[in-house]
Parts: sequence; C-alpha cells; structure tokens
Amino acid sequence: MNAEILSIGSELTNGRNLDTNAQWLSLRLGELGIPVGWHTTIADNYEANLEAFQIACRRARLVIATGGLGPTQDDLTREVLARLAGVDLVEDAASLHTIQEMFRRRNRVMPERNKVQALFPVGAEPLPNDRGTAPGIWMRYGNAHIAALPGVPTEMYAMFELQVKPRLQTLGLAQGVRLQRKINTFGLGESHVEEKLFDLTRRDHIPEVGITASDAVISLRIIAEGAGEAEARAQIAPVEQTIRERLGEVVFGVEEESLQDAVATLARLHRITVSVAEGVSGGLLSDALVSVPGASAWFRGGLIAYDDRMKQEWLGVPAELIAQEGTVSPAVAKAMAIGCRTRLQTDVALATVGLAGPTPLGGDLPVGQVWVALAHAGGEATGNFCWVGNRTEIRRRTAKLALNLLRLHLLRQAP
Amino acid sequence: MNAEILSIGSELTNGRNLDTNAQWLSLRLGELGIPVGWHTTIADNYEANLEAFQIACRRARLVIATGGLGPTQDDLTREVLARLAGVDLVEDAASLHTIQEMFRRRNRVMPERNKVQALFPVGAEPLPNDRGTAPGIWMRYGNAHIAALPGVPTEMYAMFELQVKPRLQTLGLAQGVRLQRKINTFGLGESHVEEKLFDLTRRDHIPEVGITASDAVISLRIIAEGAGEAEARAQIAPVEQTIRERLGEVVFGVEEESLQDAVATLARLHRITVSVAEGVSGGLLSDALVSVPGASAWFRGGLIAYDDRMKQEWLGVPAELIAQEGTVSPAVAKAMAIGCRTRLQTDVALATVGLAGPTPLGGDLPVGQVWVALAHAGGEATGNFCWVGNRTEIRRRTAKLALNLLRLHLLRQAP
Repeated sequence: MNAEILSIGSELTNGRNLDTNAQWLSLRLGELGIPVGWHTTIADNYEANLEAFQIACRRARLVIATGGLGPTQDDLTREVLARLAGVDLVEDAASLHTIQEMFRRRNRVMPERNKVQALFPVGAEPLPNDRGTAPGIWMRYGNAHIAALPGVPTEMYAMFELQVKPRLQTLGLAQGVRLQRKINTFGLGESHVEEKLFDLTRRDHIPEVGITASDAVISLRIIAEGAGEAEARAQIAPVEQTIRERLGEVVFGVEEESLQDAVATLARLHRITVSVAEGVSGGLLSDALVSVPGASAWFRGGLIAYDDRMKQEWLGVPAELIAQEGTVSPAVAKAMAIGCRTRLQTDVALATVGLAGPTPLGGDLPVGQVWVALAHAGGEATGNFCWVGNRTEIRRRTAKLALNLLRLHLLRQAP
Repeated sequence: MNAEILSIGSELTNGRNLDTNAQWLSLRLGELGIPVGWHTTIADNYEANLEAFQIACRRARLVIATGGLGPTQDDLTREVLARLAGVDLVEDAASLHTIQEMFRRRNRVMPERNKVQALFPVGAEPLPNDRGTAPGIWMRYGNAHIAALPGVPTEMYAMFELQVKPRLQTLGLAQGVRLQRKINTFGLGESHVEEKLFDLTRRDHIPEVGITASDAVISLRIIAEGAGEAEARAQIAPVEQTIRERLGEVVFGVEEESLQDAVATLARLHRITVSVAEGVSGGLLSDALVSVPGASAWFRGGLIAYDDRMKQEWLGVPAELIAQEGTVSPAVAKAMAIGCRTRLQTDVALATVGLAGPTPLGGDLPVGQVWVALAHAGGEATGNFCWVGNRTEIRRRTAKLALNLLRLHLLRQAP
C-alpha cells in the first residue's frame, strides 16, 4: 500500500457534503499503478489535521490531501504542513503575483486575507492553480511525498493532471499498471449473466471480472494489473472476447455507452426515422433518444399518450381493444406503435404501456408489469417484463426495454 | 469530537465504489447531537484494519464501522475486533439459527462458509440484521463503544435505526442537537439570492445559513445547533420566516419537494388538467409531471414535437410563423402551447423550444437559448433564459423553467 488520501473539511465529517475527491484520486492513482491503502477525512481542527498527516506520512509513501487551502481562518493546511516539517511559512512572490493578477482580471480588489494563500512552508514547492486562487503545495516529509491540493473538484482535477501526475511519474512509486474495461449488457438478469461467466467471475480469476447492475443494465468490469499497459491490455483482450462470445447480442456497448447510443448508431446506419408513443414511460423514452447529440437527424418526436382517451383519439387505438385486453397488454402496445408509425410517418415506432404504481389498480395486474412494442415496415414485435422497483425505476427500465427491442430488431437486419 | 466512522473494503480505497455510508452516518449522528471528527477508509487488509481500530478507539468515544462482515475470506472485521480486545471468537447459537432460517425461507441450503457470520468476540453483543445474513457487532474497547455494521447500505440503514440508535441514546455522548431545514427556490440566480440574504449567510451568523445550487434550483439550508430539539427549532423558525418574506414566491418548497410536486399540489387545488408540447425538453417536462404519484388525475399527456413538421401538422403552428420568427421564439412557443391546449382539450398547456447544442445552428441564436410558454383560459404567458451548461443541463433546466411558469400562474390565481 503506497498512498493515503486525506480529505480535509468539517463539511465532510459532519455529512453536509459527500466527498468524491478521494474516489477520483484513487482511480487516477490506480491508473498510474499506485495502490491506495487509506482514505482519511478530518474536520477543520488543527490538532486533528497534524495528527492525520503524521499518521499518513508514517504508513504511506505518498500522501495527497485536498481542502484547507482557502483564505479563511479555518483553512489550516499551510500551517499544519509547516508545523509538521518544523519550518516557517514564507511568502512566494510569484504565487502572490498570480493571485493578484487573477483578481485584477476579474476587476476586483484582492482582499488582504488572500495574501496567506501565497505562504508556503520553507522548502516546499508551490503548485500553480489555473482555475482558482489557491496554489497547491508539494513537499517531502520523512519517507513520504506530500501533495496538498484545493478541495474544489474542478481545481483539484486540473492541478492533479497538470502538476502532480508528471511529478508522480518520476518517483517510481508505481507497482505496475491497473486497467479497466467495462462491457455493458441488457436483457439477461445479473445471476443469469453470472451463470454464463461463472469461471471468469471466480474471486481468484486473473484478470478480475466483476459484475455490477445499474437500473437493469448489467455491466462486466475486467480489471487487469500488469507491469505495463501492454501486459494489462493483453490480459483483458481474450477475456473480453470470451464474454462477447458467450453473451452475444446481449452486449450493447463498452465503457459509458448507453442503449440510446447503440440505437442512434444503428438508426444512422440503417437510415431510418424513429417516433415514440409513450404510456408508462411518460417522456423517458423520448428523453433518452433526444439526449444523443444530433438526434434530430433521425428522431421525429412522439406522443405522450398518458391517458386512454389520447391513445384512442391520437393513435387510433380502438376503445373496444382497450376494454377487452386492458391498457397494459401486448395488443394495446402494438396498436399504439402501429398508430404512431402511421400517423407520424416514420420508418419505425416504439410504444410503452404498464403500471408504475405505487398504487395497484385492483384486478390481476401487478405493479411493475409493462409491455413494449415496435412497429416496422415488416410487422411488429413486443417485449414485456414485470419489474420490481419504485415508480421511477419501473419507468426508466421500461424505456430501456423499448430501446433494446429496437436495437435487437436493427441488429438482426442488413443495413 | 466524539465519533469516528470506519469504512472497510478495498473496493472503496481503490476507487471502484463511492462510499456514501460515512456521510449517511455523519448526518444521523449529527441529528443525535454526536459530532463526527474522522472518517477512515481502509482496504481489506488485516494489519491495516487492526491499526485503524486502535487509532480510532484512542481518539474517539464512538467508533462505527461498516463492511467486512460478509462470509468470505477477505471479510476481516470479526477477527480484527477479537484480536483488538484480546479475546476469542465464539459461536452465537441464536445468530446461527437466524442465518439458517433466512436461507431456509429462500429455499436455499446455507453454504458452510456462512457459519462464520455467527461468530462474535467474547463479550460482544450481536446486532440482528433483518435485511441480510450478516449480524452486526456491538462491543466496548477501552474508552470507546464500537458498532460494526454491514457495508450494504439498506442493511446498514436498518441496523443503525433499529439497533444502534436506541443504544446511542442511552450513552450520553450527545453534545446537543443539530437540525437542518432546507428551503428550495427557483427563478433567481445564486448571487442574487445571496444578495437578498447577505446578513444571514455571513460565516458567523447563528444559525448558519448555506446556499447550494443544483441544476438551477437554489436551496437555502438553515443549520441550527442547540442543547435540545426545541432550542434548535426556535433558532430556525424566525430565519425561515425572514427568508420567505424576502424571497416571496421564488420559494417553492422545503426539504425534498420538487417543482413538479408544487405544480401537482396546485393542479389538484385548482382542479385543472395539464398537457405539454415539448421541443427542446424532449420528454423531460412530461417525465417530471408523470413522476409524481397520482399524476393521471390531472395530467393528460402531450406531444414531443421535436421537428418542425410535427409542430405544424400536430399543433397547428403556421409554417410562416416558424419561417419568420424562427423555431426558438416566444411566438412559436406560444403557438405550440395554444395548439396543444386546444387539441388535447386541457385547461392549461405548456410548451418548450430552444437550442440545446452542443453544435450551434449558425445565425444569432446562442446554444442554451430557450423559450417556454403557457396557454390558459385567460391567455398566454412566456418565459425565457439563456442557460450555460451541457445538452442535458440545458434540457433539464428548461423543463423546470416551464414548470415554474405554470406554478407562478396558479399561485397568483384564486383556486
């Protein structure tokens, strides 16, 4: 374990703010091959800060702190680091000039108090901040390298990338490289996916393969560690291929690709236009499609047919069909998709119906039951599921079910 | 500083997962008047765990740990606590019985390995887990009380509320009570809100008043500390009243209330029906309304008129108007709202148009410029803004701008 991350601020220890800096830094250090053993969060308290730096510098070879560099009296990091090293604080003329310039550019007078941000422990190196007033601090204490960065995430990110990362690469702290590959699937449950990959997801498998579920999307993460990037990549490639072979068309993308990204790519490839008729999804299906930049090239729009009268008047679903089959039925979903495709004159149309709760309607229909339908030039297709979840989860997952129906249809056709 | 929170798991120190347990526990402890001084996160490593418990028990009077209670070999908390106290692990018959029952109810055979979850350090007290197999541990070491809870948030929440909280209330660790009140506003920028409340948001003001912005909703948090709940409430009440007096109708709710909640309450009060015609918001406005349980009582549905042909054919917006004024104009937004209200036969209708980017269209129209319109029995109203943000932010904020237009209209009318 080489590194410890210190997050400083009473707003973190009292729970008002959620610390995301420690996770971000852990991921970045992991990419550089530097394993993180500890995150410590401390309040704005002088003695507690000093003790935390002492403990960290004893057990870790790299200590990255965030926060406590502002101009106010509860920003203690500068003083604590000077005391830790047993040295004085001295003004750095270049840093002071940069801070003054930053205020001047904004046509503001620098408050006297901001001068403290140009103070550094003797022997420490200032880390320029191009996003804010607080410079960071780079120094050594005992066996440890210390980087003190601002707590504001955007400032911290930039300072880490521009100032800290280049320094770390020269220190020889890396114990190899850690790479991740994320493969996203839809259509099989988590345990079903695990069953197909049981030999890969064993705890002792190398590289490590983890499964995570997020709103009905099941993702596989391949995590490889190697002496270098090439070695890590070479571990990942065959495992990714095995996963793709076993799961087939259930795989829709990698890393941050979403179902709508996959649909958008296929819609462009097939040069088709798309419209939607939304019952239970109530706007979420349309939102997913519109969220893809450039959607206007293939997405025409749609209808939120939230009540049955709209399904009849605007989509031409016969009142008798709704009475006979019930709104939440494959027949009504199909009639909505056909009506939407005809009236909006698009190549394909998707429809959703379902019961999102929280109150059951009475009768046999369970909360969570949904149907989705696709109308295309050659006919129709439907899908259904009974989701377990709250109103928002049921609606979000139904939109995904519809997107996946269209994705599979296009995937199985020649463009 | 009375309490320290330990989060255990390599998935936290390596950044794969974000720890939210520490924040949740800090907030709960704060409500009980127990200040938290430290969060420490450690990997699944025996020595590091032992040292972390030793440090925590030295400096804090209450140590709450989460994680490390599962049945696998890298779940170390039981062993570490026994070693810390210098005692053996012994099987607790009642806990073993409960774990076996849990498997039986699910018609599964208990794996041999799960037996370790019934082991406890001699002298410790098991904390029943009604959401999972891992019981928690309650014990004393030196001057500190220790609670070891599962890492799975839902299990941890329930065990804290049912088992830990009642025990804490008898320990006399509280240093008073800390209460929060959140007041949500829409329609004024953050600095404008701060200007109106500059005397309350000063750092030394008691109670503390903080401002946070989240997707164009500006919230004020009043945070009061007092010996008892009544004292803290008495601090909050006059400050809340001052905020409401100064901000007036900009305040739309408290705590977790959203703009759509406010609209839903007013729609029911005024007994009106609502429909929407969405351009740039592309489903998000409808989604916001549908997300309120019981929306079908007053929300009829709407049109996603994402392209101009749909605006003409389905909403009756004249092609010449679009050509003259441009799609992103108050005239087109108004015509969409009027067309929607007439054709869907609702009491009011909302419409949105705008440019969400990322690519500019050319011409004078900046990315982020949007118009919203409301059509009602007495006429129309419009609103506009030029948002700075990405595609998703622009679209989400535009849906809020439309909701707020309807909210203000209904607020100013007698029901």
